[in-house]
Amino acid sequence: MRPTVAWTGDAIEIIDQTLLPAEVRILRLTTADDVVDAIQRLAVRGAPALGVTGALGVLLARTDEEAERIAAARPTAVNLRASVERVLAAPDRAAEALAILEEDVAACRAIGEHGRAELPQAKRILTVCNAGRLATAGMGTALAVVYAKAEAGDPVEVFACETRPLLQGARLTAWELADAGIPVTVLPDGAAPALLASGRVDAVITGCDRVAANGDTANKIGTYSLAVAAHHHDVPFYIAGPRSTLDPNTATGAEIEIEQRDGGEVRAVAGLDVTTAVWNPAFDVTPADLITGFITDAGVLHAPYGPAIAGALA
Amino acid sequence: MRPTVAWTGDAIEIIDQTLLPAEVRILRLTTADDVVDAIQRLAVRGAPALGVTGALGVLLARTDEEAERIAAARPTAVNLRASVERVLAAPDRAAEALAILEEDVAACRAIGEHGRAELPQAKRILTVCNAGRLATAGMGTALAVVYAKAEAGDPVEVFACETRPLLQGARLTAWELADAGIPVTVLPDGAAPALLASGRVDAVITGCDRVAANGDTANKIGTYSLAVAAHHHDVPFYIAGPRSTLDPNTATGAEIEIEQRDGGEVRAVAGLDVTTAVWNPAFDVTPADLITGFITDAGVLHAPYGPAIAGALA
Repeated sequence: MRPTVAWTGDAIEIIDQTLLPAEVRILRLTTADDVVDAIQRLAVRGAPALGVTGALGVLLARTDEEAERIAAARPTAVNLRASVERVLAAPDRAAEALAILEEDVAACRAIGEHGRAELPQAKRILTVCNAGRLATAGMGTALAVVYAKAEAGDPVEVFACETRPLLQGARLTAWELADAGIPVTVLPDGAAPALLASGRVDAVITGCDRVAANGDTANKIGTYSLAVAAHHHDVPFYIAGPRSTLDPNTATGAEIEIEQRDGGEVRAVAGLDVTTAVWNPAFDVTPADLITGFITDAGVLHAPYGPAIAGALA
Repeated sequence: MRPTVAWTGDAIEIIDQTLLPAEVRILRLTTADDVVDAIQRLAVRGAPALGVTGALGVLLARTDEEAERIAAARPTAVNLRASVERVLAAPDRAAEALAILEEDVAACRAIGEHGRAELPQAKRILTVCNAGRLATAGMGTALAVVYAKAEAGDPVEVFACETRPLLQGARLTAWELADAGIPVTVLPDGAAPALLASGRVDAVITGCDRVAANGDTANKIGTYSLAVAAHHHDVPFYIAGPRSTLDPNTATGAEIEIEQRDGGEVRAVAGLDVTTAVWNPAFDVTPADLITGFITDAGVLHAPYGPAIAGALA
């Protein structure tokens, strides 16, 4: 598979994820405006991929003000601003940006191996949104565990919540898993608790956009729904992500800014007009006490999360 | 508002709910085949409306075999088969069918008043699918409580889960509430637990397709998700429906046949091809122990549900 984010020396090349699965079109971003636009309309998305794109975007920015606009393009993911600021502060910005890309590839691989070791018996994985290759520069976060299992010959299949309103589960997760020859079944988001009740899920694994210092986790809207239902059914619920998604400067989930997106994203498929009021938060916050563990590139973190997260970042 | 199901003397007239909200088209059903087709493609849906349509459909059937095909058109709702069999067994079939229609109108009104009395402080109601005028011959079941509040001048607003895959919440509930001047906000199904966590919901009320003798309840997929999340947040969770939805012949939810619908309903909006596997149950089962009460035309039933349901049917 073509990498989700690549650097050509004078441009960022990304797969336009708004067009999947119908079309695989490569977008060539050559200006900071291109980068901001691609991020805001979700042509590239996923916290790690946003971090890599932001880092490379600094190399396209003509001024620090342009770089700041990239950092602010989406507020919830911690990786984007952190990567932009890291590159801005580096003596060799190009080397730093490419290092961020390579670190992401390595972190994905490590997440996959740690997750495989943590969940050796889990064959049937439920997830939401896309925390796979398309969300990173490497083999994904939540789906890295699935890919690591498949590479090792372990039996594995995925249930993918379609993830309204933008259908990243149906469009992206189903596409990349099918591309890799891994069985995947798409389901409506509201059906996931019934699937858990049926006993057909061994573990829930999702990605994350920002993890607070206490373990509270912001991720795609619908993640909290899975966490509550998994808790109700005693199914393990894991968050997967690189350490760059851990944010020691955010004390708890209450401090995480949740991006509200345009209601048109929800209205479109039902043919609703603009007079219909819509609640369309991009993310929700899952409290740490519903999370069985964090699968990171530094290993699997278990409660109490405050010291575990501080230790992983030390 | 035009009635959802009406009898003209030689035909059933229904609003074609597959076209809402874009178009209000009246379908005229004159044969049993018309009735079966309208039921199977969900031009008419909602357990009470199916019961009324089935009852009137017997008047259009030329043979008992045709009537049986109407009874079997959808398996989960108990009202459909029960109404068909009741009309078939009556000495005056036309009078019996019209009595079923009038009983439904009266039951909706009673449900609204009992629900209003049960939940005097509930201003913000969360629901899924459509359990309103469009699901009945009268003022609805879950939404009858809302309409009764509005008629009495009580403040009330509704959060409507969009209800994938067929979007009955976004298309039907939002449309009929807006038509009545009642504030309604549509949200993605996966966002509902986050809404409950935010403290902006006073009560969840949904309809039902079949209630077993012990109170286990089959309703639109996604209902169970709301029940689990409402339980987690100590928000009252009510089922509303006429006594005709109570099925003393089904002991528990485990015996309820759950209709599996075509995966194309899920695939369409994401542009997925037929090779993508889909899990698309039309309904899920909420266990009785997650249900705060049943708002019926005979009053509100509370646990223990076995004797309460038997008493309501006595």
